[in-house]
Amino acid sequence: MSVTAAQGFTAAGIAAGLKENGKPDLALVVNQGPRLAAAGVFTSNRVKAAPVLWSEQVIAGRTVSAVVLNSGGANACTGPLGFQDTHATAEKVAAVLGHSAGEVAVASTGLIGVRLPMDKLLPGVEQAAAALTADGGEQAAVAIKTTDTVHKTAVVRSTDTAHVEPAGTPAPATGQGTWTVGGMAKGAGMLAPGLATMLVVLTTDADVDADVLDTALRAATRTTFDRVDSDGAMSTNDTVLLLASGASGTAPAPAAFAEAVRTVCADLAQQLVRDAEGASKDIRIEVVGAASEEDAVTVGRSIARNNLLKCAIHGEDPNWGRVLAAIGTTSAAFEPDRLNVAINGVWVCKAGSIGDDRDLVDMRYREVTITADLATGTESAVLWTNDLTADYVHENSAYSS
Amino acid sequence: MSVTAAQGFTAAGIAAGLKENGKPDLALVVNQGPRLAAAGVFTSNRVKAAPVLWSEQVIAGRTVSAVVLNSGGANACTGPLGFQDTHATAEKVAAVLGHSAGEVAVASTGLIGVRLPMDKLLPGVEQAAAALTADGGEQAAVAIKTTDTVHKTAVVRSTDTAHVEPAGTPAPATGQGTWTVGGMAKGAGMLAPGLATMLVVLTTDADVDADVLDTALRAATRTTFDRVDSDGAMSTNDTVLLLASGASGTAPAPAAFAEAVRTVCADLAQQLVRDAEGASKDIRIEVVGAASEEDAVTVGRSIARNNLLKCAIHGEDPNWGRVLAAIGTTSAAFEPDRLNVAINGVWVCKAGSIGDDRDLVDMRYREVTITADLATGTESAVLWTNDLTADYVHENSAYSS
Repeated sequence: MSVTAAQGFTAAGIAAGLKENGKPDLALVVNQGPRLAAAGVFTSNRVKAAPVLWSEQVIAGRTVSAVVLNSGGANACTGPLGFQDTHATAEKVAAVLGHSAGEVAVASTGLIGVRLPMDKLLPGVEQAAAALTADGGEQAAVAIKTTDTVHKTAVVRSTDTAHVEPAGTPAPATGQGTWTVGGMAKGAGMLAPGLATMLVVLTTDADVDADVLDTALRAATRTTFDRVDSDGAMSTNDTVLLLASGASGTAPAPAAFAEAVRTVCADLAQQLVRDAEGASKDIRIEVVGAASEEDAVTVGRSIARNNLLKCAIHGEDPNWGRVLAAIGTTSAAFEPDRLNVAINGVWVCKAGSIGDDRDLVDMRYREVTITADLATGTESAVLWTNDLTADYVHENSAYSS
Repeated sequence: MSVTAAQGFTAAGIAAGLKENGKPDLALVVNQGPRLAAAGVFTSNRVKAAPVLWSEQVIAGRTVSAVVLNSGGANACTGPLGFQDTHATAEKVAAVLGHSAGEVAVASTGLIGVRLPMDKLLPGVEQAAAALTADGGEQAAVAIKTTDTVHKTAVVRSTDTAHVEPAGTPAPATGQGTWTVGGMAKGAGMLAPGLATMLVVLTTDADVDADVLDTALRAATRTTFDRVDSDGAMSTNDTVLLLASGASGTAPAPAAFAEAVRTVCADLAQQLVRDAEGASKDIRIEVVGAASEEDAVTVGRSIARNNLLKCAIHGEDPNWGRVLAAIGTTSAAFEPDRLNVAINGVWVCKAGSIGDDRDLVDMRYREVTITADLATGTESAVLWTNDLTADYVHENSAYSS
């Protein structure tokens, strides 16, 4: 059900002709209220695509009535004319729906450095608006795909108590109804090709304001999407939006709501990892025994970005020396002769030197876990990456040709 | 002639049996004086191989009478026993040659996390010592190869005035003779497999002290080896040594000597790039218009490490958007809408947006030049990297299996 799992939202996904292959390429998500609260996080790349520059301004107003998303072109590095294209897209959505353009967020994904064919996009907006339905979430998720092999959606309902009522959050919800957080995603954190772009739209019918949304979204992305690093290449277009309609009439406890948002984000992030371009392994990197969470993340990211290690994992080679070499490039607190490394549970490196027999490591399965123990403190972090494969090279060397 | 081009040095390269394929794997370089001055630079990785930890101490004494180098094993992450192996190797060289072990530098390259077969290495030292000759430089260069397809040597003589008498260095040399700087290298800056290891030994018969050597070597590596970044993976074993015998009896002007050292380093660095594993393109990254040299290097390194871009170059795709995305991840001084990028001389990006027709870019040849103009200042830097290829993945996924 994706972005239409929550009450108060309609969506559509149609083929506007932006993609040469005729596949769906334009999605529209509309918040029908009564609330129009919104929060967003965007790429930290200083080279930001036009739709990111636009949507940052829209989100600053804390109100979003609609989101229009296109695949088939990132509208990045397209200068003032590209920004005008984004502006014109928002104006078109506003005109068709009777909204204000300042409340219409825009997201784009595809090749960098190419203008969008506005003669196809603007008629596409009318077509999408005409196709809006309360169960259009799946079609919208399909329309934002680029090299994704599957579309990605996730839903958590407040009745799913395992997820949304963590221990220590007893504050009762107001109202009697249930509420829902749903969402869709495409791409992966920083892994896709020229269109190195992750787009995520989350919706909820919980009756929460923009402050609650912003707090929940930042907390959720910090430990989910921000810890997926498939190829170290940061996008110009990454966008994660969270819209609340309030249509459930229920105001959940902030902690329970935040946990639901985190659960949806974690689910979508995991789907991105599993669908990473050309990947044959999903690598879970657990850094433990760190002096600080920041140290743990720094070390995890260094491991995630080590091409030599990623090749070794592809070859099912438990090459722990490459893990140590990656750790050694960071300024995290550790002593080289106290480092321990396990691969799939086998401690192949102990005290910075040779540990258990590497032949004991079974790497036949898609998921591989690397545990790096800095033996310095009690903090930890989990990051995800993929292996580096010939397929990755093929996909990304041929993409725009 | 390699390390024996300069007077006062002998060398040998033999097969000690460290490599299973029986190829040469042990090299010995001996300084016969009258000087025994030396300088060295080592990996900045905090996880340092045993021979690096040993040789750093040797270099601190500013005197090196011999260097023993082995391929077939990096002796990294081998703990106290691995350090004992390095120590025993130096002691063996000292005993055979009648030197002090504290003046014997050791360098190793090969797989990380495996002990060296000392029962083969120590007899190999005797064999190498027996084979020392004044023209053994080529054999030594061959014996330090790992996945190198060719051995790498370079020589500059003081009579080669184009190299060693740059404008503005009129200070006359003392003595009447000529002098020489020669050297050998294996691997590449940070590009090779599990043995991500660059080993370089330079020798000179110039009559210079350790201070002059140190100054010349640091200045040379800063703009040569330090600007080669083939795959972003920093080695545990990188070692560059410069030994002076003083045998020419000539003390060159420091600037002329430094320029000769820089020329040899630049030549060897270029050979490393051209022989990078699996590479089909050598990518010259020129960053110009930077506010500082540091900014220029930071931006160049970010470009050099962008896997998506490196795949695109492999595919002969002038994907300048990926260059901008890489620049955007840095904190260098620039405005996104003022950035200009040329690929092989065609300014495909102007003012952060679409520039000249990308179809004008000819990428058929091995060398590709990317020029990134930050349009902020007058500083610049040149870095070198390689493309990312399926062959790189194959070589590095299968290496230790």
